[in-house]
Amino acid sequence: MHSKFIVIEGLEGAGKTSARNVVVATLRQFGIEEVVFTREPGGTPLAEQLRTLIKQGVEGEKLTDKAELLMLYAARVQLVENVIKPALQRGAWVVGDRHDLSSQAYQGGGRGIDHTLMTSLRDTVLGDFRPDMTLYLDLPPAVGLQRARQRGALDRIEQESLAFFDRTRARYQALAAADPSIVTIDAAQTLEQVSHDIHQALAEWLTHLGLTCGEPG
Amino acid sequence: MHSKFIVIEGLEGAGKTSARNVVVATLRQFGIEEVVFTREPGGTPLAEQLRTLIKQGVEGEKLTDKAELLMLYAARVQLVENVIKPALQRGAWVVGDRHDLSSQAYQGGGRGIDHTLMTSLRDTVLGDFRPDMTLYLDLPPAVGLQRARQRGALDRIEQESLAFFDRTRARYQALAAADPSIVTIDAAQTLEQVSHDIHQALAEWLTHLGLTCGEPG
Repeated sequence: MHSKFIVIEGLEGAGKTSARNVVVATLRQFGIEEVVFTREPGGTPLAEQLRTLIKQGVEGEKLTDKAELLMLYAARVQLVENVIKPALQRGAWVVGDRHDLSSQAYQGGGRGIDHTLMTSLRDTVLGDFRPDMTLYLDLPPAVGLQRARQRGALDRIEQESLAFFDRTRARYQALAAADPSIVTIDAAQTLEQVSHDIHQALAEWLTHLGLTCGEPG
Repeated sequence: MHSKFIVIEGLEGAGKTSARNVVVATLRQFGIEEVVFTREPGGTPLAEQLRTLIKQGVEGEKLTDKAELLMLYAARVQLVENVIKPALQRGAWVVGDRHDLSSQAYQGGGRGIDHTLMTSLRDTVLGDFRPDMTLYLDLPPAVGLQRARQRGALDRIEQESLAFFDRTRARYQALAAADPSIVTIDAAQTLEQVSHDIHQALAEWLTHLGLTCGEPG
């Protein structure tokens, strides 16, 4: 049984942290103990420095859409080569808080960066490396932003307009509809129902992979 | 008379700083007073932060070739959009210490990054923006490295092998031979002769553009 890379995606405030806990508990039920967590952008010393630059920007300088995208991919390639691939190779499973789908949705959808540039950059940087399964937490942007606001000050990207997040969500939905490895979860439901749906989707997939559920963790 | 973007290129220790002084003096002779200097990677607050990450790396983490390249382009697009294009638009001339040709030579030649990736990244990030004239200071790597060593400790890239710089120089030479906007200067000559050649090449080009040489500056 090869280890797998599972990614949790969605807008700010969609409930990615709660989802991660459900994912880990479910993996444990199926006997998977070694799980490596990643977050993007970030997850290596260099990628975390890039994360800070991307999230906060630099005082008095406009961060161009292209530079933002290039820095995101620089951080991603560091994470993939130095953390994710080595973890998978030694048999650990990897659970990612965001991965490439975020760039496709936020930069491709939200910022409107040309589709050809988006896919050619992804293919040249990542080759054919892709997550094995993605849980996309779908939520109306207004709901997610209200939750994010309750957590504290919004960063540079969280301060974008509602129209930006509408475009981002629309791109998430379109990409999820076209890719069978992405499971859409209705994240506007109660936390209990969302957790149930995540558990069920993941358990189904793990069972399909040939794993069996032991005692609840 | 539109303002122009002139770039000085070459290996470490090729004499780019001396060349810049000759370029500025020559521009003054031709009545061009407002000159903006840039250096790459760098030249904006964000690009300078990326320069530090590229030059020094991050302790204990391998900087992948692709992340290096993506960070170089992130820095470049910030400089082009926020500094070079605005300067040219208001009528200033721009003299750059390195530009895209460095990436083509160091990352494409030295590191051997795929040519299609190199050109597609350049075209998607920079569009058709190119320097109007490039002075390439050609020098055997061993000579340049000895000069660079005399200036102090070598950075992450300067510590590469001689074979790396041989490949870089070969790519510089090949690209210069194929592009009429690149003038090759033999930088292994005496400083006086190098300065003479730079002055002559630039004065010829400026005259061809229709500018006339006034009193020496």
